[in-house]
Amino acid sequence: MNSIITISRQYGSGGRFIARKLAEKLGIPYYDNEIITMAAKESGYSEAIFEKAEQISTHSFLYSLSMFGSAEGLYGLPLADKVYLAQTEVIKKCANEGPCVIVGRCSDYVLNEYPNVLNFFIYSDEEHKVKRATQYYGLDPKKAAEELRKKDKKRANYYNYYTNQRWGDAENYHLSLNSDAVGIEAAVDIIALFVKSHDELNNK
Amino acid sequence: MNSIITISRQYGSGGRFIARKLAEKLGIPYYDNEIITMAAKESGYSEAIFEKAEQISTHSFLYSLSMFGSAEGLYGLPLADKVYLAQTEVIKKCANEGPCVIVGRCSDYVLNEYPNVLNFFIYSDEEHKVKRATQYYGLDPKKAAEELRKKDKKRANYYNYYTNQRWGDAENYHLSLNSDAVGIEAAVDIIALFVKSHDELNNK
Repeated sequence: MNSIITISRQYGSGGRFIARKLAEKLGIPYYDNEIITMAAKESGYSEAIFEKAEQISTHSFLYSLSMFGSAEGLYGLPLADKVYLAQTEVIKKCANEGPCVIVGRCSDYVLNEYPNVLNFFIYSDEEHKVKRATQYYGLDPKKAAEELRKKDKKRANYYNYYTNQRWGDAENYHLSLNSDAVGIEAAVDIIALFVKSHDELNNK
Repeated sequence: MNSIITISRQYGSGGRFIARKLAEKLGIPYYDNEIITMAAKESGYSEAIFEKAEQISTHSFLYSLSMFGSAEGLYGLPLADKVYLAQTEVIKKCANEGPCVIVGRCSDYVLNEYPNVLNFFIYSDEEHKVKRATQYYGLDPKKAAEELRKKDKKRANYYNYYTNQRWGDAENYHLSLNSDAVGIEAAVDIIALFVKSHDELNNK
């Protein structure tokens, strides 16, 4: 198995759990929020700053780069964009070390020039997302649906801002699936079969 | 196996071929342009009219229904919309007869109130679509890329017009895949595994 696997997922879709199980099944490293921590350590920012930095501007990243990136190197960039750039370096380092599973952080886009990357998108019905978010993340059942929509809206904005692509567009990924239709275990098996088939096709 | 399967696909993605192979593998009926023919026969229009009727208006179908549908029954509707309605009846008839594979014609949307429907979307890289369209559909290699984009644009407009959804949005389907990443045979196996897993989950 020679692939770098990226997983994008809706909040409460079980996507992160699927990613971890997939990494176990394939016997390869798994990275999610660890990436943020690693990036924080390497770039010298504190983790608290990284959390705040998720507030992105309303322009696109390219606009931000063109406005602030040229005059003073990258030092004039908004904090969120500096953090993004630090993260991309970490994601590339992970990928350079060999096959692995990376969750979120626009990793599909960050690695789009790597030849051996497979990108997956996991989503789910609202009813099941609410159930998972209530059960595993302790969200208030009454507010869970609204909270979920906000979280996904934030993820979409973050993705669209940095990639100029649309989060959840099937064509951004090699495979997208609704985890509720088959359950977590089967979703892992289906993605693993996809990865295996891809490898066989490319090693013919 | 208890599922009605719909397949939406980009032109040249191999999606129709995958659909036929899937139907064979599962031992269930397969419908694509046959639907048009059947609809034509049942509604009394000629097939030539059906082909012309793919030219849809720039408004939405709901607008069209509200403008022309109420005053004189459905008789005031543009021809394309009458044909669409005739097709939806045929699609529902096919689905009512039991498990089957239906290709295109917004069948995912037409059957969205059926409980046992699984929707798939097949797409592909432009390079491979051009190759397939040149090889199997006889397109001029020089014009194939432009022709493909036009065909897909037409399919997207048709879908968006009748469904008020966005063609190629992952969430419209239960699974979407890039057929080039794994090849036709593996794509059939992956979808079949998805269908089997769905059935097992729902018959627990």
